[in-house]
Amino acid sequence: MQKVSKTEQKQIKSLKYKKYRYKNGLFVVEGVKVINEFLNSDYQLVRLYSLEDVFDVSEEKLRRVDLATLKSLSFLSTPQIALAVFEIKQVKALKYNALTLALDTINDPGNLGTIIRLCDWFDVRDIICTKETVDCYNPKVVQSTMGSLTRVSLHYLDLPQVLQSSGLQIYSSEMTGESVYSAELNQHSILVMGSESHGVSKEISSMSSPLTIPHFGSDNKTESLNVAMATSIMLNEFKRRTIEMKS
Amino acid sequence: MQKVSKTEQKQIKSLKYKKYRYKNGLFVVEGVKVINEFLNSDYQLVRLYSLEDVFDVSEEKLRRVDLATLKSLSFLSTPQIALAVFEIKQVKALKYNALTLALDTINDPGNLGTIIRLCDWFDVRDIICTKETVDCYNPKVVQSTMGSLTRVSLHYLDLPQVLQSSGLQIYSSEMTGESVYSAELNQHSILVMGSESHGVSKEISSMSSPLTIPHFGSDNKTESLNVAMATSIMLNEFKRRTIEMKS
Repeated sequence: MQKVSKTEQKQIKSLKYKKYRYKNGLFVVEGVKVINEFLNSDYQLVRLYSLEDVFDVSEEKLRRVDLATLKSLSFLSTPQIALAVFEIKQVKALKYNALTLALDTINDPGNLGTIIRLCDWFDVRDIICTKETVDCYNPKVVQSTMGSLTRVSLHYLDLPQVLQSSGLQIYSSEMTGESVYSAELNQHSILVMGSESHGVSKEISSMSSPLTIPHFGSDNKTESLNVAMATSIMLNEFKRRTIEMKS
Repeated sequence: MQKVSKTEQKQIKSLKYKKYRYKNGLFVVEGVKVINEFLNSDYQLVRLYSLEDVFDVSEEKLRRVDLATLKSLSFLSTPQIALAVFEIKQVKALKYNALTLALDTINDPGNLGTIIRLCDWFDVRDIICTKETVDCYNPKVVQSTMGSLTRVSLHYLDLPQVLQSSGLQIYSSEMTGESVYSAELNQHSILVMGSESHGVSKEISSMSSPLTIPHFGSDNKTESLNVAMATSIMLNEFKRRTIEMKS
């Protein structure tokens, strides 16, 4: 068993906070399955703390620790078998290859994690976020992406400005607008999802074509879908048509 | 301010557990918005504990309490303004009006809550669950449905037997099967979703037509969608066609 110094312990715990993640350029990943996804990606491992010998990494980066030590490092209520520290990656320049997703401020880490996982599934490789959107290296986001973060790039930018200068068609998900079921959807475009509490901002609405998911049932009192659910339906509508176009 | 006796406090805290919920026939709802949804439904209020006078309920059911008392009763890390105890409702007999959803064991309360909310959105009024599926009156389920539980009925039954005797076409969501995008979908049917870890059981698979959500991208490594996400896409595929059929 190897000891983890108080200083090292303190540094890892500080990575819960965005300020310290970016100051150190580091973030935390927990659990064998998710750690392996990061090991098999272009993320650089700094240190791996593990109860068991289940990883193929160099000796100098590995620390065999006991459960008490792992518990003292973990952000989870029930720690997994291992915890790893990786370097934050330089984001590649934004390219508009196909559909790009944009998030007009998502605060909930679970929602962002789910949206990243959905993008991975639907082969959407870039997400543009307002600078107010929760950081993708937040431990809760990292855990809920289940490794999808290794395959999707998040760009935290001045969203209205990026949209304006993109030259692309902009769609926004709104409470009223053209039904996404019947609208003609331009695949080389940007789709903006708004926050659950405030929706898409006026500024962004004014430059985009509003799309809506129709209500079902005559007496339907459901106010809204959760933003992650709405994203799954919107992305599904865009992407299933690419399959139909091929066949 | 009114006092809440130790016995009353203990009874409410016990409703965290299924055994005591069904022994007492009671469950807990928290937060003004969700409580109001239950007050405006056919659920019967037993007692309401509130920091503020914001509800239109009879005096004998209302307890004005302070924050310390509310904290001692709440299941949330940050208690809302109010907490209410309602009676568990007798479930109406299962009717197959249109599409019915079936759950082959969902363990995660957040997933079940999201699925109930999705059913409400897509006008699916009945869900059949295995008896092993998490209880819909679990506090975490109740909170994550955001009131949708008042409009969707859950039937905990012997699922294989119910499917067999339904006489309806059964679909199951699987890793392989006919693409849900191109399959002809019978709207008067039952759609079975399996648990994320084990999928649909062999017994149920053998009596159903497998449907699958196609993968996107040539090099897609995403293993699977979360069951709530998969449900949103499946329900969307069934339901959008009912709109297309009308138009």
